[in-house]
Amino acid sequence: MTTTVNSIDKIFIQELEKILGKPQSPIPLHEPEFSGNEWTLLKNCLDSTFVSSIGEYTNQFEVMLTEYTGAKYAVAVVNGTAALHISLMLAGVKLGDEVLVPALSFVATANAVSHCGAIPHFVDSELNTMGMDPWALEEYLSKIGEVTSQGMINIKTGRRIAAIVPMHTYGHPMNIESLLNLAERYGLPVVEDAAESLGSTYQGRHTGNFGLIGILSFNGNKIITTGGGGAILTNNAELARQAKHLTTTAKKPHPWEILHDSVAWNYRLPNINAALGCAQMERLSLFLAKKRELAARYQRIFANGDQYTFVNEPQGCCSNYWLNTIRLNKPDISTRDDLIAKANAAGYQCRPAWGLLHKLPMYKDCPRSSLPIAERLEASLINLPSSPKLLSVT
Amino acid sequence: MTTTVNSIDKIFIQELEKILGKPQSPIPLHEPEFSGNEWTLLKNCLDSTFVSSIGEYTNQFEVMLTEYTGAKYAVAVVNGTAALHISLMLAGVKLGDEVLVPALSFVATANAVSHCGAIPHFVDSELNTMGMDPWALEEYLSKIGEVTSQGMINIKTGRRIAAIVPMHTYGHPMNIESLLNLAERYGLPVVEDAAESLGSTYQGRHTGNFGLIGILSFNGNKIITTGGGGAILTNNAELARQAKHLTTTAKKPHPWEILHDSVAWNYRLPNINAALGCAQMERLSLFLAKKRELAARYQRIFANGDQYTFVNEPQGCCSNYWLNTIRLNKPDISTRDDLIAKANAAGYQCRPAWGLLHKLPMYKDCPRSSLPIAERLEASLINLPSSPKLLSVT
Repeated sequence: MTTTVNSIDKIFIQELEKILGKPQSPIPLHEPEFSGNEWTLLKNCLDSTFVSSIGEYTNQFEVMLTEYTGAKYAVAVVNGTAALHISLMLAGVKLGDEVLVPALSFVATANAVSHCGAIPHFVDSELNTMGMDPWALEEYLSKIGEVTSQGMINIKTGRRIAAIVPMHTYGHPMNIESLLNLAERYGLPVVEDAAESLGSTYQGRHTGNFGLIGILSFNGNKIITTGGGGAILTNNAELARQAKHLTTTAKKPHPWEILHDSVAWNYRLPNINAALGCAQMERLSLFLAKKRELAARYQRIFANGDQYTFVNEPQGCCSNYWLNTIRLNKPDISTRDDLIAKANAAGYQCRPAWGLLHKLPMYKDCPRSSLPIAERLEASLINLPSSPKLLSVT
Repeated sequence: MTTTVNSIDKIFIQELEKILGKPQSPIPLHEPEFSGNEWTLLKNCLDSTFVSSIGEYTNQFEVMLTEYTGAKYAVAVVNGTAALHISLMLAGVKLGDEVLVPALSFVATANAVSHCGAIPHFVDSELNTMGMDPWALEEYLSKIGEVTSQGMINIKTGRRIAAIVPMHTYGHPMNIESLLNLAERYGLPVVEDAAESLGSTYQGRHTGNFGLIGILSFNGNKIITTGGGGAILTNNAELARQAKHLTTTAKKPHPWEILHDSVAWNYRLPNINAALGCAQMERLSLFLAKKRELAARYQRIFANGDQYTFVNEPQGCCSNYWLNTIRLNKPDISTRDDLIAKANAAGYQCRPAWGLLHKLPMYKDCPRSSLPIAERLEASLINLPSSPKLLSVT
């Protein structure tokens, strides 16, 4: 047993070394790259003195996001969590509702539900896409859900199920079309968490642009970064108007009067962060190309292992390969942790999947379906260093 | 009547011209100034690639804030609203509670209460400080408040009154010591909204450092800016620990495991915004000196008017004079609006006070005391251009 673990270890580190070289210093999981106009745009921003909630870069960044994703409207905000919070509210999520979210996701997906005063309801994932499983969900809802004039009710808790939040794990598109079909049949709005999947398409259409409303994140570890940042995407003009209004203190337009017409948030992305975003968007295609090439290298080396499988983009999808990932063929948390510990010790920053959300203390009593695949993925996923700049390391 | 209004107009514009010169282009109400190390620190930030939630500038900015304000702990967050939201939660404000806030404040003061699921309860201000009136509040609470084992209960609504949020209007310290005495007698925690008063002291002690917890804002229009930003100040180690934890997704420290132990927020100030903040803090003393000199000029010119009074710092206080302000001796909204319209047309960006919070549609049914002074202030306050750089205009 120990011998087997050791040999997986050694092979794993050797293979990382083949792809990434021997680290001079630790290789981060995902590092941003500022080799374009970041500099110039930040300077313009300072020179103009418009660094805050008013400024042309925030507007320009929104335009760049609509042009790139094909969504009609984009509203730039301080981060992905804020984007998801407002999107859920706009989808009609209210105090005491339940919202279907994957158990396998970053904690923000569930936190945003909590920020609405609602309760996350955890559902299972598919093995290949690592995203919400529409078929398992359908079977589950047929048992616990009842469609009434008030919407879908969870017959076990008596609470309304108000929305579904699929998430595109590590940039790989989940089966969004099947999920949309299911959601439509049950009358549930879809809020698409595309925090990790800027640059990823499903059947040629950009992720985040399928549901009623979708969100992006530009945190420092994402494919492009604004320091902190996020965006709300939608094709619905009225939702876009409300998203902008609620994220900018609901101030009524006037040259000097200060009146507001709704409880609202101060979530607008500052102009200085958007300046960074504009420069990063100019580089997105290059980042994507470099990341695909890096993914191809990982794929070539890791494809033949009998211990683990490299996670490829799902069929019909183009993934941004935000985080390259392998999956242990035999799920085992201690093997996983051993590989990760050895890799980190050798200077390759690897990490496991997020601890499943239904096991976290604040969410342990929330409703959930059986979660066999999420459990299996948790015990088998390992993220690998994925910065676009890694290509120049070797 | 028309003649009087016209003559006030003309005098007002003439006096602005004496102080600020004839505008070549519109003079903003408050413009930031980036003439120090902003540039260098932003460049360091980009060069290090640490622009996001992890980075040394955010830590350094927090240290600079503690050193400057004298508060033991500072936690830097995305904006003042977020700071107030978390501070109220940490002060124990819960769903369905009431929180005493001034009717005369920026809407964020009330919104942060709403973000906790609590209800703002509006109280009156003092004429001179423009901040919450501790004596009027005491008289009011003696009528509507009952101290019970559950805390203070509003006998009219049956709801718990959970906290008091005084605010230092336009940078002028309110009577914080009298308010603290009152709060102590009634067992109410004080969350001090010092969003506008960085650099202002009351009896030599920095505002924001009196209550259980206090907040600052670094929005683009404030005395220093981080683009968007805010901070939580406290002298309580445990509150500081919780503030940091709840604003950073409550992640448990570990080199690679991703586990969280509480519903939490993504409110950390990004490193790139903090870099700007560090450079701005280096300039704060200079900004304060320039602003005091500008205030002195306004004071000299406006002191002798029989139509309006320049708002001086309260006795025993040192104000940052964030926004220089005059008060019409005869409160009248149409005179106020006429002066503001004429000033703006002449290129001097002036503005009225915020529309009183209890009149806004989302807060119109909230509990409130009588508000004679807030009403009077609303009809008489005019903010004047106050950027530190204005001294070099003339």
